[in-house]
Amino acid sequence: MNREEIADWFQGLQDDICHHLEVGDGTGKFHEDLWKRPEGGGGRTRIIQGTHIEKGGVNFSAVHGPLPEKIGNALRLDAGEFFATGVSIVLHPKNPWVPIIHMNVRYFEMSDGKWWFGGGIDLTPHYVNEVEAKHFHQTLKTVCDQHHEAYYPVFKKWADDYFYVKHRKETRGIGGIFFDRLSGQEGFTKEQRFAFVQSVGEAFAPLYLRFLADNKERSFEPEHKKWQLLRRGRYVEFNLVWDKGTKFGLDTDGRIESILMSLPPEVNWDYNVKVADGSPEQYTLSLLRKGIDWI
Amino acid sequence: MNREEIADWFQGLQDDICHHLEVGDGTGKFHEDLWKRPEGGGGRTRIIQGTHIEKGGVNFSAVHGPLPEKIGNALRLDAGEFFATGVSIVLHPKNPWVPIIHMNVRYFEMSDGKWWFGGGIDLTPHYVNEVEAKHFHQTLKTVCDQHHEAYYPVFKKWADDYFYVKHRKETRGIGGIFFDRLSGQEGFTKEQRFAFVQSVGEAFAPLYLRFLADNKERSFEPEHKKWQLLRRGRYVEFNLVWDKGTKFGLDTDGRIESILMSLPPEVNWDYNVKVADGSPEQYTLSLLRKGIDWI
Repeated sequence: MNREEIADWFQGLQDDICHHLEVGDGTGKFHEDLWKRPEGGGGRTRIIQGTHIEKGGVNFSAVHGPLPEKIGNALRLDAGEFFATGVSIVLHPKNPWVPIIHMNVRYFEMSDGKWWFGGGIDLTPHYVNEVEAKHFHQTLKTVCDQHHEAYYPVFKKWADDYFYVKHRKETRGIGGIFFDRLSGQEGFTKEQRFAFVQSVGEAFAPLYLRFLADNKERSFEPEHKKWQLLRRGRYVEFNLVWDKGTKFGLDTDGRIESILMSLPPEVNWDYNVKVADGSPEQYTLSLLRKGIDWI
Repeated sequence: MNREEIADWFQGLQDDICHHLEVGDGTGKFHEDLWKRPEGGGGRTRIIQGTHIEKGGVNFSAVHGPLPEKIGNALRLDAGEFFATGVSIVLHPKNPWVPIIHMNVRYFEMSDGKWWFGGGIDLTPHYVNEVEAKHFHQTLKTVCDQHHEAYYPVFKKWADDYFYVKHRKETRGIGGIFFDRLSGQEGFTKEQRFAFVQSVGEAFAPLYLRFLADNKERSFEPEHKKWQLLRRGRYVEFNLVWDKGTKFGLDTDGRIESILMSLPPEVNWDYNVKVADGSPEQYTLSLLRKGIDWI
């Protein structure tokens, strides 16, 4: 299995997910922008602005060339040629009862033979629904358990730690799984690691389509919409202040519009928002913390 | 002149500016939150949500205690007790013809006797008005020239370099002045440096009140409002990705709601926005670059 086969599979995953999301949205169609990286490679950015998915991006890229020094330092790699490919997704729904979702699956290799997979899925409900949270984590656990029993507990904790809005002392949402540098440790083969990443990628569409179908027609009040716009502010704060992928992209002259497709279409920041005792907003905030066993 | 006198003057400046802004807005009144820092000191955060100033903050703080390690490393200072005081302002107007403005004036000292002043003012018009840009820079130059002929050219260039949205390759606005670590270099006394910072602080209210008075009643179309919301997105990108003051605050457990009062009340991010040839939006973008002599 070589890097072209992995990139091809990711491209197919992008096609498949875009197709399912168009069906799930009902009317929205993806707009595609092809871009090239001057130093080598490029990508297919696809954006949807639909009826139910207010703004969403499903991006594929496969880039290569001399390893940028900043990345070499951050990843502690010697100079050489790198290759990186992956799919990145962020979806901002219109209806506040539908959660925001993010997924990334990626493969990286160096000319000296080092290779690894990384990725994750996490869910950011504007209002936490415990039944959906349980279904989300149970599905990810089932996917993980098919490949290794340690995957879910380790990657679930990793997601809690990674998707954390440190300055607010709250998690971005209800977490999910996060993993990086999955290579040949403990006797894993590249085929086994890739099979796991493929399972994660394939889990995405059915998961999100269910949350979309179950909630997209639910009625909501202006106060629910307002809360959604405020929670989107936290999403922006995480992505611009803490997210390593975003910072790398900005630091290394990536394609800005593809990187920042993750930002919500409409956002509010109010000063010092307080939530009422016993309100659904307070209930949600009480669940934005690490270490919850959702299953 | 000791640090208490400097802090007292800054507090008086906050009072004065808040008074003038309430008059300029017409109906808005500042809401005040007093806060204490567990390790020493505290602040007065004042927020206005008025008729013409949609969201604005005028913050005073005076904090002290053991120097946090992260700040020591970044400022290359030995361990010790620090003291820092200043006023920080960001105003987001409702009318897109009124510019966003920012000012900061601050004083820092260490228990080993090191001291310096820093600060700056910069203007971020949603639509650049060259007459106003000239007046803004001319006023700042006049203020600077009263204290030293090198101040304006050096601090103007510093602002161009500092208020730069690197990943967008555009300046945040039309710049202004920025300065830091103004201490006893070249024979300057503390009194002289402070006198300069006082002049900067006193220039703020008349400058902004003029821009507000001249534009707050101007009619605008939905397309102008839309452009304002998109430009506010760039403001967020600068503050969360590049602004050192914001990052320090977030890194060092500052009062989050005071730090992030700079974020606009309502913001949009659209994918890959293009402006029409010959449009006012394109004209503005063409002027968001370093090195323009506005005077």
